[in-house]
Amino acid sequence: VDSLTLGHLIHELGGVLRGDANTQITRLAPLASASKGHLSFLSHPQYASQLKNTNASCVIVSPEQADLAAHLTACIVTPNPYAYWAKTTQLWRRLSQNELKATIHPSAVIHSSAIVHPSAEIGPLCVVEADVQIGARSRLASRVTISEGCQIGEDCLLHSGVVIGADGFGFAKENSHWVKIEQLGAVRIGNQVEIGANSCVDRGALEDTVIEDGVKIDNLVQIGHNVHIGAHTAMAGCVGIAGSARIGAYCTIGGGAVVLGHLELADHVHVSAASVVTHSLMKAGQYSGVFPIDDNRSWHKNAASLKQLNTLRERIKQLEKSLAYDQRS
Amino acid sequence: VDSLTLGHLIHELGGVLRGDANTQITRLAPLASASKGHLSFLSHPQYASQLKNTNASCVIVSPEQADLAAHLTACIVTPNPYAYWAKTTQLWRRLSQNELKATIHPSAVIHSSAIVHPSAEIGPLCVVEADVQIGARSRLASRVTISEGCQIGEDCLLHSGVVIGADGFGFAKENSHWVKIEQLGAVRIGNQVEIGANSCVDRGALEDTVIEDGVKIDNLVQIGHNVHIGAHTAMAGCVGIAGSARIGAYCTIGGGAVVLGHLELADHVHVSAASVVTHSLMKAGQYSGVFPIDDNRSWHKNAASLKQLNTLRERIKQLEKSLAYDQRS
Amino acid sequence: VDSLTLGHLIHELGGVLRGDANTQITRLAPLASASKGHLSFLSHPQYASQLKNTNASCVIVSPEQADLAAHLTACIVTPNPYAYWAKTTQLWRRLSQNELKATIHPSAVIHSSAIVHPSAEIGPLCVVEADVQIGARSRLASRVTISEGCQIGEDCLLHSGVVIGADGFGFAKENSHWVKIEQLGAVRIGNQVEIGANSCVDRGALEDTVIEDGVKIDNLVQIGHNVHIGAHTAMAGCVGIAGSARIGAYCTIGGGAVVLGHLELADHVHVSAASVVTHSLMKAGQYSGVFPIDDNRSWHKNAASLKQLNTLRERIKQLEKSLAYDQRS
Repeated sequence: VDSLTLGHLIHELGGVLRGDANTQITRLAPLASASKGHLSFLSHPQYASQLKNTNASCVIVSPEQADLAAHLTACIVTPNPYAYWAKTTQLWRRLSQNELKATIHPSAVIHSSAIVHPSAEIGPLCVVEADVQIGARSRLASRVTISEGCQIGEDCLLHSGVVIGADGFGFAKENSHWVKIEQLGAVRIGNQVEIGANSCVDRGALEDTVIEDGVKIDNLVQIGHNVHIGAHTAMAGCVGIAGSARIGAYCTIGGGAVVLGHLELADHVHVSAASVVTHSLMKAGQYSGVFPIDDNRSWHKNAASLKQLNTLRERIKQLEKSLAYDQRS
Repeated sequence: VDSLTLGHLIHELGGVLRGDANTQITRLAPLASASKGHLSFLSHPQYASQLKNTNASCVIVSPEQADLAAHLTACIVTPNPYAYWAKTTQLWRRLSQNELKATIHPSAVIHSSAIVHPSAEIGPLCVVEADVQIGARSRLASRVTISEGCQIGEDCLLHSGVVIGADGFGFAKENSHWVKIEQLGAVRIGNQVEIGANSCVDRGALEDTVIEDGVKIDNLVQIGHNVHIGAHTAMAGCVGIAGSARIGAYCTIGGGAVVLGHLELADHVHVSAASVVTHSLMKAGQYSGVFPIDDNRSWHKNAASLKQLNTLRERIKQLEKSLAYDQRS
Repeated sequence: VDSLTLGHLIHELGGVLRGDANTQITRLAPLASASKGHLSFLSHPQYASQLKNTNASCVIVSPEQADLAAHLTACIVTPNPYAYWAKTTQLWRRLSQNELKATIHPSAVIHSSAIVHPSAEIGPLCVVEADVQIGARSRLASRVTISEGCQIGEDCLLHSGVVIGADGFGFAKENSHWVKIEQLGAVRIGNQVEIGANSCVDRGALEDTVIEDGVKIDNLVQIGHNVHIGAHTAMAGCVGIAGSARIGAYCTIGGGAVVLGHLELADHVHVSAASVVTHSLMKAGQYSGVFPIDDNRSWHKNAASLKQLNTLRERIKQLEKSLAYDQRS
C-alpha cells in the first residue's frame, strides 16, 4: 500500500478513533523516528516521554494513556495497543501484497502422495516427501523440507531452511559401536504454528513428535524426537530441547536455553535465556541459571574460587563450630 | 510391512524365541502403549513394572529378565535387548520400503567431476561440488551440500540441510581489518557416519578436517576447521567444536556443549550437556560445568554473591586467621 | 596451480625475499608438516622451534625472526607474516581456479525484480527474492536465501544454507495467544561481509537489521531483528544475538556466546566463548561468564554449594560479627 485511511483501519480492526477518519497513513514507524503521515503505538509506559515528542500523525494508545496523545492529529484508543499494532502490521502486509503468489513454486519437489491444501503456499526449492499433509493457508517459505509422513496444520508459517522430520538421534550401543534405531514415528504440527529459519524438529522413534496449536519457535532451534510442546508456548533462537522432553502450554523458553531429555515442564513455566534445565520444573514460574558476566579478570578469580566452593563451605562450617566452642568456653 | 512373523525376525537377527514362531507382529511399540500384535523391548530394569502390565504380544528381554516375560504370548531372549531392538527397527524399515528410490534425484546438482558410488543415494536439491567422492550405500537426504574436494565414506547418512566443506573461519588481522585466509583443505568423513539436519563441518585451512568411522552427530552441530573427531564418538544437538580441536574416540558430547579451539580430549571423555570445555581433558571420565537452574529469585541472589566469591574466600581466610589468633591468646 | 615462483609471489604481495626468486613453491603447508618445495609461515614466537626443524623451502617471517630462518633455502621478511600468509592463500586460490564459474547457476531461483551485479556469483539452488540487491563481486555459495527487499553489499561471501531476511521473532500477546507482528523492515549488509554456513539474519520489524562493512560471522549464528553490528566485528560459531541489540565496531564474540535483546556493546568489546551478556557493556575490554568445567563429582558438589551461596555469605557476615564481638569483649 501507499496509504491507508484511519477510517479504513478502524473499520477493519475496531478501536476508538479520536481525530479525522480521513487522515492518510503512509507508513508504520516507531514513536521516536515517526514523521507526519506515520502511524505508531505506545504500549509500555516507559516510552510515554517519546509520545510527547513524536511527530507521528496517529498513535495507538490505551485508555489510560489517551490524554497524553491529545496533542496529536489523531489517536486510536484500545485496551491492548501492542496487539492492535500487531494486527495493523498484518493488515498493512496484506494490503501491500498486490502480487499473487503461485500456490506451489515450480522448483519445489513435492511427492505425488503428499496432500497439500489448495490454499497452502509452497516456496521455491522446498521438499515435501511422501504422505505429508499440509493444511489450509499454511506457508513454507523457501528451502523447507517436510519429511515422509509428517503433518502440518492450518495457518502455519515455516521459514527458510526448516527441516521437519529428520531422524531423531537414537542409537543402541553394542561392543562400543552405535547401532542405529530407525525412527519410525513422524512429526505432527498443529495450527497457527510458526517455526524460524533453519530450525529442526525431529521425527519420533516410534510415536510422533508433537507441536500443539499456536506454538512459536524462533530460528536455529532444535527439537528432539518424541518431544511434546504444549499450545501457545514460545521459544527464542538457538534453544535446544532434547528427546522426549514434555513442555507445557503457555511456556516461554529464552534464547540459547537447553532442556535435557525426558524432563517435564508444567504449563506457564518460563525459562530465562541461556539457562539449562537439568530437572523437571513442575511449578509455574520463572527459572534461571546463568553465570553472571564480568570483566575477564574478576570472572577468572571468581571462577577459580568456585572450583573450591564446597571446600569453602566446609571451612565456614568449621569456623562456626570453633566459634561456638570459643564462646562456650 | 503390514506384518512380520517372529520366526522371520529370529531368522534374520538371531536370539532365542520363547513362544510361537508364527506369531504375527503388526507394529513396533513402546511397552506402555503396546497392544496385541505389537513387539516391544525392555532394556533398563527401571521399566520392569511396565513389562508386567504390557499388552505387547512379544517383548525383547535379557536372560536376567526373561522370567518376568513368562506371562506374554512370546519373548525373545538376547544379551543386549536394546541393540537387538535397534536392529529390529532397521529390519522393519527395510521391509517397509517397497518403493525403489532413484539413486540420484533429478533435482540434485552434481558436478561432472564428482565420483558418486552407484549404490549411493542423493536426495532432492542436494549440491555435490567438483572432485567430491561419495562412497557405497551412503545417503544424502534432501538439500545437503558437499563442497569441492570433500570425501564421504561408505554407509553414511547425512540429513537435510547439512553443509560439508564450507570455509573454516580464518582471518588474519591487518590494521584492525580482517584479511581472509583461504581454506585450502577439505573434509574427510569415514564410514558409518551420521550427521544431523542443518549441521556443518568446515573444510580445513591447509589440511583436512577429519571425522573418523562410526561417528554420530546430531542436528545443528558446528564442527570447525581442522577438527579431528575419533571413531565412534557421538555428539548431541547444538554442540560447537571450535577449530583445530582434537576429540578422541568413544567420546560423548552432550547437547549444547562447547569445546574451545586447539584443545584435546582423550578417548572415552564424556562431556555433560551445555558444559564448556576450556582446557584439554586428557583423562577418560565424565566432566561437567553448568550453572544450576533455580527459581529466578534464588538464582538472582546466588549469582550476585558469585560476583563476590573471591572476596568471600578472602574473608573466610581472614576469619580463620583471627580465630586462630584468638584461640592462641 | 601446480607451482608458483617466489619471485611471482613477491611481485604480487611485496615483502623482502632472502633467497632465489626462481624457487618453485608447490604447496602451502604448516611448518611442522612442510617438505621441500613447500611455503609456510611463522607468526607466533611460540612456534619458533618448529621453524628450526621445518623442511619448508621458504617461510614467511617478521624482521625479528628473520635470522632464525637463515638455514632455509629462502625466507620472505614482512612486518605482519600472518596477514601476508592470508594474502598468499588468496593468491593461491585465485591461481588455482582455472575453471570459469557461471555468474548465476541455472538452478538458482532469482526474482525478476532483483538486481544482481553482473560480477556477482549466485551458486546452485539459491533463492533471491523480489527487490533484493546484490553488489559487485559478492558471492552466494549454494542454497542461500535472500528474502524480499534485502541488500547485500560488495565483495561479500555468504556460505551455503545462509538465510537473510526471514521474519524477526515478534508477537504481541492477546488473551494468552500470540498475535504476529509482521516484519516490515529488511536487512542491509555492507561490503566485505562474510557469513558462515546455515547462519541467519532476520529482517527488521519496521526498520532494517544492519550489518556494517567488514563484519565476519561464522556458522550457525543467529542475528535477531533490528540488530546493528558495527564494522569489522567478528563472531564465532553458534553465537546468538537477540533482537535490537547494538554491537559496536571491532568487537569479537566468542563461539556459543549469547547477547540478550536491546543491549548495547561499545566498540572493542570482546566477549569470551559461551558467555551470556545480560547487561550492556559500555567499556572496551574482555568479558567472561562461564561455569568452569570439572570432573563430574567435583562439579556436582560445587554446584550444590552454589545454590546456597547467598546463605553462605550471610553466615560469613554472622561469623565476622560474632568474632568482632568476641574480640571486643
